[in-house]
Amino acid sequence: MYHLLKKLDSKIKFATAAAHCDIPCKIYDPISAQIAVLTMIRLVDLLNDLQEKTFYNPEDNAQFIRLVGQKELYGNKVKEEISMIWGDYIKKPQLDKYPELHQLVHSIMMETSKAKQSVDKEITMSLLAKVNRFADIFWQSKGKSTFVAQCPYPPAQLLVYPLLNA
Amino acid sequence: MYHLLKKLDSKIKFATAAAHCDIPCKIYDPISAQIAVLTMIRLVDLLNDLQEKTFYNPEDNAQFIRLVGQKELYGNKVKEEISMIWGDYIKKPQLDKYPELHQLVHSIMMETSKAKQSVDKEITMSLLAKVNRFADIFWQSKGKSTFVAQCPYPPAQLLVYPLLNA
Amino acid sequence: MYHLLKKLDSKIKFATAAAHCDIPCKIYDPISAQIAVLTMIRLVDLLNDLQEKTFYNPEDNAQFIRLVGQKELYGNKVKEEISMIWGDYIKKPQLDKYPELHQLVHSIMMETSKAKQSVDKEITMSLLAKVNRFADIFWQSKGKSTFVAQCPYPPAQLLVYPLLNA
Amino acid sequence: MYHLLKKLDSKIKFATAAAHCDIPCKIYDPISAQIAVLTMIRLVDLLNDLQEKTFYNPEDNAQFIRLVGQKELYGNKVKEEISMIWGDYIKKPQLDKYPELHQLVHSIMMETSKAKQSVDKEITMSLLAKVNRFADIFWQSKGKSTFVAQCPYPPAQLLVYPLLNA
Amino acid sequence: MYHLLKKLDSKIKFATAAAHCDIPCKIYDPISAQIAVLTMIRLVDLLNDLQEKTFYNPEDNAQFIRLVGQKELYGNKVKEEISMIWGDYIKKPQLDKYPELHQLVHSIMMETSKAKQSVDKEITMSLLAKVNRFADIFWQSKGKSTFVAQCPYPPAQLLVYPLLNA
Amino acid sequence: MYHLLKKLDSKIKFATAAAHCDIPCKIYDPISAQIAVLTMIRLVDLLNDLQEKTFYNPEDNAQFIRLVGQKELYGNKVKEEISMIWGDYIKKPQLDKYPELHQLVHSIMMETSKAKQSVDKEITMSLLAKVNRFADIFWQSKGKSTFVAQCPYPPAQLLVYPLLNA
Repeated sequence: MYHLLKKLDSKIKFATAAAHCDIPCKIYDPISAQIAVLTMIRLVDLLNDLQEKTFYNPEDNAQFIRLVGQKELYGNKVKEEISMIWGDYIKKPQLDKYPELHQLVHSIMMETSKAKQSVDKEITMSLLAKVNRFADIFWQSKGKSTFVAQCPYPPAQLLVYPLLNA
Repeated sequence: MYHLLKKLDSKIKFATAAAHCDIPCKIYDPISAQIAVLTMIRLVDLLNDLQEKTFYNPEDNAQFIRLVGQKELYGNKVKEEISMIWGDYIKKPQLDKYPELHQLVHSIMMETSKAKQSVDKEITMSLLAKVNRFADIFWQSKGKSTFVAQCPYPPAQLLVYPLLNA
Repeated sequence: MYHLLKKLDSKIKFATAAAHCDIPCKIYDPISAQIAVLTMIRLVDLLNDLQEKTFYNPEDNAQFIRLVGQKELYGNKVKEEISMIWGDYIKKPQLDKYPELHQLVHSIMMETSKAKQSVDKEITMSLLAKVNRFADIFWQSKGKSTFVAQCPYPPAQLLVYPLLNA
Repeated sequence: MYHLLKKLDSKIKFATAAAHCDIPCKIYDPISAQIAVLTMIRLVDLLNDLQEKTFYNPEDNAQFIRLVGQKELYGNKVKEEISMIWGDYIKKPQLDKYPELHQLVHSIMMETSKAKQSVDKEITMSLLAKVNRFADIFWQSKGKSTFVAQCPYPPAQLLVYPLLNA
Repeated sequence: MYHLLKKLDSKIKFATAAAHCDIPCKIYDPISAQIAVLTMIRLVDLLNDLQEKTFYNPEDNAQFIRLVGQKELYGNKVKEEISMIWGDYIKKPQLDKYPELHQLVHSIMMETSKAKQSVDKEITMSLLAKVNRFADIFWQSKGKSTFVAQCPYPPAQLLVYPLLNA
Repeated sequence: MYHLLKKLDSKIKFATAAAHCDIPCKIYDPISAQIAVLTMIRLVDLLNDLQEKTFYNPEDNAQFIRLVGQKELYGNKVKEEISMIWGDYIKKPQLDKYPELHQLVHSIMMETSKAKQSVDKEITMSLLAKVNRFADIFWQSKGKSTFVAQCPYPPAQLLVYPLLNA
């Protein structure tokens, strides 16, 4: 099964040079992180709607628990998606061109933790701004223009998208 | 903690009426399923590149295992994302308007299983066509126009995207 | 490692023709989905017992959270088990004989979401009726007679079981 | 939210006294562990079928990897299901009546590890015998008679089932 | 790919004879279980701090839910880590020398369930004593001396550590 | 349930200021990452032992797959543990004092990906050096002296440990 002879396989080496999972498969897309932040914002909105109710029944209480639980999961997803692109795609050339990247990613990690601990909408909105900035740098680094548009579902916030050629 | 009085909360009821998780939070986006199929196609390409090598070293063998393992995970993700939109968003109005939906979703489940069992690129390409058809119906049902563009990363296949207003 | 020669392996092909995971291994048993619904019913009972208490201590509150968290997990399990049998075992012959299957599975998905959002026992009981109907069709389609018996643990509800030959 | 007054809630205490999750919800059923062992046996059969092939194509190789991967997962499930019943349901009365229980559960853990490391059918068959013995004790301890029947799917092995009253 | 000739590989057999995962890789360290119990204690402390507040805002409520959710996860980790060492490393020689082991592990499983159901610090402290006892036996069985020291972070409890040679 | 009045809770705010999960619970310990790297080294050793065999049986092949699969999991764990401490504990004071931290963590992410893609022991040894450097900085930043000792199990490598007071 194993042959002692090693052959330099250029195709594989090339694949290794760039990389969404660390296969590396080179499919990176910040949209997954952006959707995860949008979901956190939406869940904060729903949590705040619940709070405004005068009376609370068990179903409201159960829903509050579910909303907090989902917010945890989407917070984890933001961290996971951003740190994957940072650890697998961002290399010396990107760091040289965008020296803010380490600090930006670190502040996304810290702010996601704050957003998990909080039900304050301002924190999740600030997190979205940072994740959009990351998306903007990402697409620029790949030579893609970007535009800003409202996402086509609640919470109807502005996202940075790559300009695609139809 | 629990008040016996029940109050009809119109905001919450409205949220319940439509819904990416079953919170329901109403954030549905077929792009997650589309990226997962793209990843399966890409992994099949890498598996086929590996096969063409004349000599095999242990690292190639380990990489083959990793590629198969990732293909399993992305296959599960396709199923999960499509069945979530089907089970939580697709309701009587959508079924009346697009009677092919049950059959389409069922064939996506079956074809994803085949794509997990296979390294044949034609099967994953056929799966992509079906998932794109699903995305097309989804965006239409929300009153959004769609367009077709090449995804901005390997495997550079055509995806159905919603037309956003910048 | 890879031989160019392809051999038609009838045993493997046969295995592919029918299939609990998409290996396919042909081990399908709706009992896993049925136990998951029973657990949801049981958790709803415990949630309702808690609600009836006049005073609430922190441990009750923590238990309420745990019960809601577990109900989420078992709801996910119902969806996963049913959609796996539907996507891997239910094929054209079963659909021709039981044309209600797509609609039944879709309504199980929708009702499980409702049962996750609710603490109303009627919803989980209605879900159990649908999952039992699915089990009944499943065993019939395999030529097995079924019977109805009380499950030997709380919540002591009626389940559809296959008749086995001792 | 928290009231200082503690109320002895007999219903909850009763629930705590006996316990499939550690909620405790009192729904224990060894069938989940039994199905997991059956699946391991089935996967070993499929692995051995594959081995007998004279020529190997990439799809066979990928399938071998998938079979091994699934066997890992079902091995983990056997351990998880058995140790849950042992840790939450088996208490002093059961241990007094069935003094072999600690040793039996420990040997199930060890043998499951061996079955994960091996493709030898005898090991998984020996594991099934132990898990069936565990199921037999379990149902006896709950005052239920048992019977032995062939499971209604591959690998068509004998399982211990509780006798239910239709 | 498969050669019929079997070779007795002593290195592999030796690896099989002793074993933290069931590879077996022989890396076992009770510190993971000990840290998990410390975390449960810490979470109980934070839960009790929260309870002492006179007024409760939504963020406190969300934090209570997060604390309970994390306590579940670390409880699962205690069970998983201890039962892995018990099932893979503890064999006849260790059982002969430390006959209390089955009973000790069983009581750790039961007490972890209690600690998951409770916010009473005494229960988690009693669990720590048992897990420390397990660590002590473990290191002794490997011929390592142990010492007791305060862990260098909250909740600043005493842990059993192996004596290492700098 | 929710009181409108907000009370500044100093205890909770303090807890928020410093923090192994983002609760924050302040229990951080790089030993989990260090054990995960040791496991990767050990798995590479076992993979290389397997390669040296002249003849290969199916069980060897299955073991190769299991070893690669475990290496993936422990690689993920290295990334997860290090990025958690970096994102939740490392803040401005630590960054000012140890300006290498962003670069060090980034290189740990990249090198872990390489270690997942490879069976070359040098890569995992280089990863260990980096993770040990991270542990050293971590303990220093908490005012703890460190020492270097051989870990008390295979692969018997040198680890940085905090000096504890017995």
